Amino acid sequence: MSTTQANKIEINKVATSKINQVDFDNLNFGSVFTDHLLECDFKNGEWQTPVIKPYAPFLLDPSARVFHYGQAIFEGMKAYKDEQDSIWLFRPDENFNRFNSSAVRMAMPEVPEEVFMNGLNELLKLDHEWIKKGLGNTLYIRPFLIATGEGVIANPSEDYKFMIILSPAKAYYSGEVKVLIAEHYSRAANGGIGAAKTAGNYAGQFYPTSLANKQGFQQIIWTDDATHTKLEEAGTMNVFFRINDTLFTAPVSERILDGVTRKSLIDMAKKEGLDIEVRPVLVSELVEASKNGSLKEIFGAGTAAVISPIAGFSYRDEYYELPKVSDSFAMILKEKLTNMQHKLIEDTYGWTVKVS
Amino acid sequence: MSTTQANKIEINKVATSKINQVDFDNLNFGSVFTDHLLECDFKNGEWQTPVIKPYAPFLLDPSARVFHYGQAIFEGMKAYKDEQDSIWLFRPDENFNRFNSSAVRMAMPEVPEEVFMNGLNELLKLDHEWIKKGLGNTLYIRPFLIATGEGVIANPSEDYKFMIILSPAKAYYSGEVKVLIAEHYSRAANGGIGAAKTAGNYAGQFYPTSLANKQGFQQIIWTDDATHTKLEEAGTMNVFFRINDTLFTAPVSERILDGVTRKSLIDMAKKEGLDIEVRPVLVSELVEASKNGSLKEIFGAGTAAVISPIAGFSYRDEYYELPKVSDSFAMILKEKLTNMQHKLIEDTYGWTVKVS
Ligand SMILES: Cc1ncc(COP(=O)(O)O)c(C=O)c1O
Ligand SMILES: Cc1ncc(COP(=O)(O)O)c(C=O)c1O
Repeated sequence: MSTTQANKIEINKVATSKINQVDFDNLNFGSVFTDHLLECDFKNGEWQTPVIKPYAPFLLDPSARVFHYGQAIFEGMKAYKDEQDSIWLFRPDENFNRFNSSAVRMAMPEVPEEVFMNGLNELLKLDHEWIKKGLGNTLYIRPFLIATGEGVIANPSEDYKFMIILSPAKAYYSGEVKVLIAEHYSRAANGGIGAAKTAGNYAGQFYPTSLANKQGFQQIIWTDDATHTKLEEAGTMNVFFRINDTLFTAPVSERILDGVTRKSLIDMAKKEGLDIEVRPVLVSELVEASKNGSLKEIFGAGTAAVISPIAGFSYRDEYYELPKVSDSFAMILKEKLTNMQHKLIEDTYGWTVKVS
Repeated sequence: MSTTQANKIEINKVATSKINQVDFDNLNFGSVFTDHLLECDFKNGEWQTPVIKPYAPFLLDPSARVFHYGQAIFEGMKAYKDEQDSIWLFRPDENFNRFNSSAVRMAMPEVPEEVFMNGLNELLKLDHEWIKKGLGNTLYIRPFLIATGEGVIANPSEDYKFMIILSPAKAYYSGEVKVLIAEHYSRAANGGIGAAKTAGNYAGQFYPTSLANKQGFQQIIWTDDATHTKLEEAGTMNVFFRINDTLFTAPVSERILDGVTRKSLIDMAKKEGLDIEVRPVLVSELVEASKNGSLKEIFGAGTAAVISPIAGFSYRDEYYELPKVSDSFAMILKEKLTNMQHKLIEDTYGWTVKVS
């Protein structure tokens, strides 16, 4: 792409904002979108001029590759507003880099930094009123890339569409989260696409998760598909386990998404003087720790879910309830993290980035 | 769905056919589509009235679930024209059943038989001129189902769109096919979605296949992801191995698509008196058989590829060339199969179904 093309962003504003129709106190996650979106097409081997325009449906050919062969990747980020009305992102470079790693794994073109970052910045500035102040209020950011090339033949598309859409959001999970530990179904294969943030990884979880839901569990903690003995991650969260006063989380691998929240919590735990070990955690250890009372907490960590404490887990038809702890590591870390993201405490890590 | 709704199909014909613009002697697989398509939406828990209408792009919301979470399944079938201008399908019930098994695995609604079968029949009758007579001429049929519901939250869509599009086709692979045996990358996980014909299974293969292409191999033969010792299937074909005078093919499993061509060839081989064994085939066996000269043939089998002989395979950087055999089982079976499909010989299996 010629830099001139990516640097200039075409902007078409809506005639009237729909913001007044939105009840910001009653938002279902991911269901309301702001006035504008960013769009940038990849055609003839080149990224075209990015365009910011009114959020609206768009046309695709019935043979578009995304429908048939699933070339589709995305990211999940959030924007926060501080008390001075400035807008902040949290480690956006991590999302940008992961997006392009996903692109490579799915044989899609990498999105230039100018398109992703400048595009996002401009879009956020335009729709800044959609970001509300106060802890718990965020704007969820969904960059995604889909294969738009025509033809029902199983090979990579020539054409792609990159988009960023924005959705004002409160918490992702509300209410108690009980999890089921996977004994048969799996999320990812060795040498597969589990580490990529690609659409197909999610649809594959829906059916097993619906079975879990019927048994009263909201989420599944996936295990390695070869032996089902190692705890890996949940549907949209990495997972941490606290045994006595040590936190454990699985190392990232080809099967596990390298979560930004996970890696931030690891660094924060270290700085806070919490004991943390990154190593494979066995299902048997978890069951054992629960039985002998040393299992104190389990929590999920992800951009959408933030930190989501888990009330108990089921394994081989046995339910293991977690104790109520007064010094919850989940709560300590969640408070630090969200306060930092909302600029209520100092960011000593250099993770928060101002939109300007 | 009320049966009345599904039984009546709304038909909107094109003003002028584009068939005269098509060069039927020079078709790239899956790139040209007929005048019409079938569309049927699933909304409010119900299938709506199926519509046959001009092939054209359609509108989707940027937050449509198919883009973000990959709920998308498809089938691949073919229609054939006999010398009397009748149109025939090959075991369409198998595709219909597999489609709905895929739907269940991907947490999507099953498509009613009236919509799938009557819809296909009506569509084929309308676009019958696009099916050309003669061995090697076929009409490739692509039924597919995508999640159209809006919202960036990782759970199943409420709304779906079912479509059938048609593409006149010659052979899928042309030229010599050399394959690489997977040592690191994988197609499917135990307990995963490998047995479903779902979009994400294909995109995941593109990158490893592009690496194989660079080394001069057109396809990969996937192995089990846990040990990479068992031969499973190729990207869009099941695989058969002939050692001495016995044919071998892997049993279907959660990781392998239950191919219609594969199961037909197994039955045909038995009837033809060819020795056939369905059992796991090890990479080590294949290498050994190649070294001692007992490996006679490898071929892929699938609707698009029909039967695709393989010229040689690479494993651990060693290339194993296959011998030229005069009594090729691949050729014997291919001739029988395609002649049966085109009604040039009697169908003693009851597999061919007339469109009327
Ligand atoms: C599968 C999966 N694991 C983990 C995460 C957490 O990653 P992050 O903290 O970067 O949001 C996500 C997404 O948010 C995910 O989709
Ligand atoms: C992964 C995969 N394996 C095997 C096959 C062969 O199946 P069938 O013979 O039903 O076309 C296909 C599709 O055509 C496929 O996509």
